Amino acid sequence: MKKLSPPARILMGPGPSNVSSEVYAALATPIIGHLDPDFLAMMDEIGDMLRAVFQTRNRLTIPMSGTGSSGMETAFVNVVEPGDTVVIGVNGVFGERMCDVASRCGAKTVRVEAPWGDIIEPDAFISALKQNRGAKVAALVHAETSTGARQPLEDVGAHLADSQTLFLVDAVTSLAGCDLRIDEWGIDICYSGTQKCLSVPPGISPVTFSEKAARALENKKSKVQSWYLDLSMICRYWGSERVYHHTAPVSMLFALREGLRVIMEEGLQKRFERHKTLGAELTGRLGALGFKPFAREGYRLPMLASVILPEGMDDAFARRRLLDEHGIEVGPGLGETKGGIWRVGLMGESCKAENIDALSIALADIV
Amino acid sequence: MKKLSPPARILMGPGPSNVSSEVYAALATPIIGHLDPDFLAMMDEIGDMLRAVFQTRNRLTIPMSGTGSSGMETAFVNVVEPGDTVVIGVNGVFGERMCDVASRCGAKTVRVEAPWGDIIEPDAFISALKQNRGAKVAALVHAETSTGARQPLEDVGAHLADSQTLFLVDAVTSLAGCDLRIDEWGIDICYSGTQKCLSVPPGISPVTFSEKAARALENKKSKVQSWYLDLSMICRYWGSERVYHHTAPVSMLFALREGLRVIMEEGLQKRFERHKTLGAELTGRLGALGFKPFAREGYRLPMLASVILPEGMDDAFARRRLLDEHGIEVGPGLGETKGGIWRVGLMGESCKAENIDALSIALADIV
Repeated sequence: MKKLSPPARILMGPGPSNVSSEVYAALATPIIGHLDPDFLAMMDEIGDMLRAVFQTRNRLTIPMSGTGSSGMETAFVNVVEPGDTVVIGVNGVFGERMCDVASRCGAKTVRVEAPWGDIIEPDAFISALKQNRGAKVAALVHAETSTGARQPLEDVGAHLADSQTLFLVDAVTSLAGCDLRIDEWGIDICYSGTQKCLSVPPGISPVTFSEKAARALENKKSKVQSWYLDLSMICRYWGSERVYHHTAPVSMLFALREGLRVIMEEGLQKRFERHKTLGAELTGRLGALGFKPFAREGYRLPMLASVILPEGMDDAFARRRLLDEHGIEVGPGLGETKGGIWRVGLMGESCKAENIDALSIALADIV
Repeated sequence: MKKLSPPARILMGPGPSNVSSEVYAALATPIIGHLDPDFLAMMDEIGDMLRAVFQTRNRLTIPMSGTGSSGMETAFVNVVEPGDTVVIGVNGVFGERMCDVASRCGAKTVRVEAPWGDIIEPDAFISALKQNRGAKVAALVHAETSTGARQPLEDVGAHLADSQTLFLVDAVTSLAGCDLRIDEWGIDICYSGTQKCLSVPPGISPVTFSEKAARALENKKSKVQSWYLDLSMICRYWGSERVYHHTAPVSMLFALREGLRVIMEEGLQKRFERHKTLGAELTGRLGALGFKPFAREGYRLPMLASVILPEGMDDAFARRRLLDEHGIEVGPGLGETKGGIWRVGLMGESCKAENIDALSIALADIV
């Protein structure tokens, strides 16, 4: 069998995004043990930088050893007991997935729905929360990766500030690409993935739990049903005790450490600005080529443009030409938007003016 | 913050093991998308090589997107229903962990115990199975990483051949380091980890399910309680349908692909011989320095020597000197052997005569 030699790609889909040379250097760095004093020191650095990126002081801020979906499961499984009510905003694939995950924990799920591409109206969501006062969790997707919609979170967070309900947010696509203030916005549980705006390969899911969420975990009557994702044990490895739980994914944590360092060097605000400016540029350039925005105006994600295909364009054929002839990956629709839209990502290292140029030139040839 | 620069280490603990330059090159290879045609083709290569290493023809042979412990959870959560009986051999930390994982699935666990360092007597285990004829699962740890004992499996597999009970085996430390015949020995469910004898960094868990186990998954009445580890969905991504479930950990799968290629080039039998020969050499050299074997004679793992510390030796101090002065990591005891034994690994890339020499010279200075 031949050595691995994948083709070169400009990754402009909904993730994974391109990865910097610094992060690849970290991946190629010879590993050390997961209980090596130098590794434990690096874990503290990761925790500190994750807190900076999440804009939080939460002690319980940890990179889980799985992809973003393991973060979603971590978010629910550590606080939900069988019979608990969970109120979930559903306007795309990931809100739908939350319902599935929550119900596997034995939750009674209350769906607050909106059309795909739209947002969940905060008033409608708050009204559902008023009708379900004892709910354990209220869950929203900040960046719905299947539709390109950016969900406003502040009003819901403010409403829940004095309640027992935990505010849970999916930030897989938004973290480090647009403003997300865990503490200021009153978010109790949040998870993300490495392969979007953090620009680290997929495989790790940063999560953060507020003190209120940590107390809910402590007071949980039944054992967390997932041993692998049980934060009551994992926090003893990431905390001062350093008790072995599972062997940490050393190389991927090296990569995360370097990816976070690159972000700290750029600065969070400058990074948000870059995504905003180039995101607007991309939407304009795609519009000129006949791709109309899909998500509701005023609520479009800067790092992920969802666009309706021009009349008569063959989705799969056009994407195949982009990939084969130009080495550019864009994402198809997902779920009910399949075949009708594209999802064009500009995340982290992929978010560059030269990539917008390359895509525009390639598309001018294909459209 | 400075760039990442961990110290150089010879990894002779119970995992992670050292990693080859080929695998590091794979980790540093620019990624492509998880639905890229070139990536899908590579997934098939991984499946074929995993089947070769597991010595199986099982269709359902998949690298799970988590560490070995996620493989353990995958093994139980996909077949066990609440109320099912699960018979588990417990002679170390990982048998104990299996009981915890199984009970979180709602299983009634039956423990067959043996002292740490010993094996579970096949006759005693079979006798327990006869008393629990309707058991859903019978579980044993092939290589008990906490004690260094190698569990014989053939008799139990033969006994279960015509029963409904599924034979589940933990092969985290043994896979690719000593003989393990999934099909010939009648094993239905098996999982491993990448960071032991596969010599790929930690983060991926190869699993294999027989047709009998796949039928049990199909006939499961309740949904798999873990969305992230639900093989009924994951197999549609790894099978011909290529349905998106979660974003595959691209870089780690590149690494696994190269790690498996390196193993295929060496040849499985030659690799087993290397571990056997050098494992015996290591035990002899440690014996000459006053370290007596801990695990039962005749059932010692070739890739992991568990040894009792010489009288008066300070465990933590000696390990710290090995690490700081010689850059060598060995493992302490775990659970009830903590402080009393060391676990010295010779796994995959770490299994080299020069490493035995380096350790012997360093220890002669310390003992």
